[in-house]
Amino acid sequence: MATAAAFTPGARALARCDLMGAVPYSEVEGQLVRRFLTPAHRAALDTLTEWMTEAGMSVRIDAAANLIGRYEGTTPNAPALMVGSHIDTVRNGGRYDGALGVMLGIDVVEAMSVAGRRRPFAIEVIAFGDEEGSRFPASMTCSRAVAGTVDASVLATQDADGVSLGEAFAAFGLPQTDLAQAARQPGDVVAFLEAHIEQGPVLEAEELSLGVVTAIAAQKRLMVRITGAAGHAGTTPMGLRRDPGPAAAEAILAVERICSGGRDGLVGTMGRIAALPGAFNVIPGAVAFSLDIRAATATTRDAAVEEIAAEIEAIAARRGLSVGVELLQDLAESPCDPVLTDLLATAVATVGAQPRRLQSGAGHDAMTMAALCPTAMLFLRCKGGVSHNPAESVREDDCILAARAMLAFIDAFELNPTP
Amino acid sequence: MATAAAFTPGARALARCDLMGAVPYSEVEGQLVRRFLTPAHRAALDTLTEWMTEAGMSVRIDAAANLIGRYEGTTPNAPALMVGSHIDTVRNGGRYDGALGVMLGIDVVEAMSVAGRRRPFAIEVIAFGDEEGSRFPASMTCSRAVAGTVDASVLATQDADGVSLGEAFAAFGLPQTDLAQAARQPGDVVAFLEAHIEQGPVLEAEELSLGVVTAIAAQKRLMVRITGAAGHAGTTPMGLRRDPGPAAAEAILAVERICSGGRDGLVGTMGRIAALPGAFNVIPGAVAFSLDIRAATATTRDAAVEEIAAEIEAIAARRGLSVGVELLQDLAESPCDPVLTDLLATAVATVGAQPRRLQSGAGHDAMTMAALCPTAMLFLRCKGGVSHNPAESVREDDCILAARAMLAFIDAFELNPTP
Repeated sequence: MATAAAFTPGARALARCDLMGAVPYSEVEGQLVRRFLTPAHRAALDTLTEWMTEAGMSVRIDAAANLIGRYEGTTPNAPALMVGSHIDTVRNGGRYDGALGVMLGIDVVEAMSVAGRRRPFAIEVIAFGDEEGSRFPASMTCSRAVAGTVDASVLATQDADGVSLGEAFAAFGLPQTDLAQAARQPGDVVAFLEAHIEQGPVLEAEELSLGVVTAIAAQKRLMVRITGAAGHAGTTPMGLRRDPGPAAAEAILAVERICSGGRDGLVGTMGRIAALPGAFNVIPGAVAFSLDIRAATATTRDAAVEEIAAEIEAIAARRGLSVGVELLQDLAESPCDPVLTDLLATAVATVGAQPRRLQSGAGHDAMTMAALCPTAMLFLRCKGGVSHNPAESVREDDCILAARAMLAFIDAFELNPTP
Repeated sequence: MATAAAFTPGARALARCDLMGAVPYSEVEGQLVRRFLTPAHRAALDTLTEWMTEAGMSVRIDAAANLIGRYEGTTPNAPALMVGSHIDTVRNGGRYDGALGVMLGIDVVEAMSVAGRRRPFAIEVIAFGDEEGSRFPASMTCSRAVAGTVDASVLATQDADGVSLGEAFAAFGLPQTDLAQAARQPGDVVAFLEAHIEQGPVLEAEELSLGVVTAIAAQKRLMVRITGAAGHAGTTPMGLRRDPGPAAAEAILAVERICSGGRDGLVGTMGRIAALPGAFNVIPGAVAFSLDIRAATATTRDAAVEEIAAEIEAIAARRGLSVGVELLQDLAESPCDPVLTDLLATAVATVGAQPRRLQSGAGHDAMTMAALCPTAMLFLRCKGGVSHNPAESVREDDCILAARAMLAFIDAFELNPTP
């Protein structure tokens, strides 16, 4: 029998990601670049279609170029548990960010198919076409389309070559002008499970294979500008300065202190800084720096932002300086569904792994899918916390555990749980 | 008698600076721009020649375009005490930086001339043509020529229009090719006294009119680069970061602390800073910043630089980061002559002002003249410590005090002091 050539769910998923790490699944020789609606994307969908079909799924491409394989439940046309992630990459990206979640979905379905096992719900494996936004300015266009939250105006956005998203869809063989056709109904898709590499160092640091995501972090981006008085670096004694440099330094240390002492995965980062005018021999008149503050909840994040802002005001007041704080971005948190998260944590424990709960600092398709249905998210340890880089690396034993945990989740998932 | 129309030494110097604050003494209408060997420079020298002549001096232009008025001593051809400063300005500069020292010299000589008073030494008032380096890349070319330390290669340097310094000299009516002709002999010039605005806020802050410069500061310029590990601002918990940002912040505060606690006018400035790669959502892999460290003595400066470097190394080691420190510039201090400085301090006290001793953080012609003869330098309070700016402002009563102090200095100066 064909199925006697046993495959190991998870291990094969990893191998398939590696196989898709090069031309024709990449636009560029010697790198992995698989952007939305490119020939590399097409090549990936063609091969995924074969694999999904072999796994026992019926396969279609939706109006947003998402590839969807469906494995029916015990009754036809049952509501679906959707499993998957995105198949696109950043430029010179890694092989696992996104793709691993798709391949794990296929492995898990094939394992059920091999075992002849069906559940009262269908399982759909989805390969979202665009999460990274590496070709067009918008990101997560495809999961937004499925969730029914995409704005049609996105079709007019252009890539670096001046090709609009609408034109790119047409060239891909999808001449629709209505992404809303890809939208699913809440009763039709009852849950979404995404497996993804962590893109951070927590699991590796704690020597854990898997993580259960509690929420995708709430984020604020701020620009802080501390203004003092410019002066001659040689002729102005220390005691007569109104130098924003040391004030900014105190502020940066306050951010580190406040965030290190925080909870709910609070993190704060100064990513960009400039002293003005920026000459060697001039005491700066102003120092401007960016802050990126995230936490699992907007409440925790906002409490930290308030404490940081108050601290910076106090620093500036003590030094006779003035401060301006500009809010550039405010993204609410996207909590994963608590019931599904508990279910996933139990599934992880069932396969012998520690169900480490953690937040995701980065955005994911699960975030947009939460508008459609409850979501759960499984993280896999990745080497050095590295992503968006050819150095992305995942352990095979972790992939095998992930596939087992997903199968345990599917086993435990109930269409109409008893309250 | 003409001299019956009494003038107030110092007050007139101030008024003359104001008079020279506009066209034809400026190259630009509505601003003061008087660069070396321009028509504005020529206009200034023509008027200065008249004023020097009226003051009782014989006037000449030397081979470096310095205007020199000589007021003989009790015997002809006596060695000279030289008094003066520079007559050039930066672009859109102020009226007093440089010019005030020249005008005070003329006022002082005229006061002696009016009183019929001569000393055993001649007094020469010099208007150096170039101190700022605002036209040609080199600065202090003219005082270097007088001190005999100018390099002939400077004649080949070009201004922004491609005119060489040699060509500019020729166009100015000085077709010499040998700046060395401007050099004076040590026995010929026995001392140099320069009056100049402070260009810093010390005297104003202490409500003092005059300062006695002890030294022109020793300076080091450094670039510090602290290297950690770049990471995702959202996915890397605070405890797992190797973020050079807070380390740079600690370093900047260490510079402030070490310099504030220092002596000999120690100052330290972070004037330029960048986080790399400099994205909002990326923990920087490195932070680089400049340091400008100055003190009255290289010993004090170097001790501070060593302490700062050790502190930064300790900060980095504690945080698991690496540090590189690059020395970009090392200028030795130029102490004023201690005997002349004491004499000037006594002169300042004689006229009822407090002889506040301070260092100069900025460079001056007195620095290069120190290669020829002992030097002393008198600072005048300036508003807000501002210079190189149309907002430069000096009080008339301070100028009057300065002229009196200079006269007291000339009275007390002895050609061959008894040991």
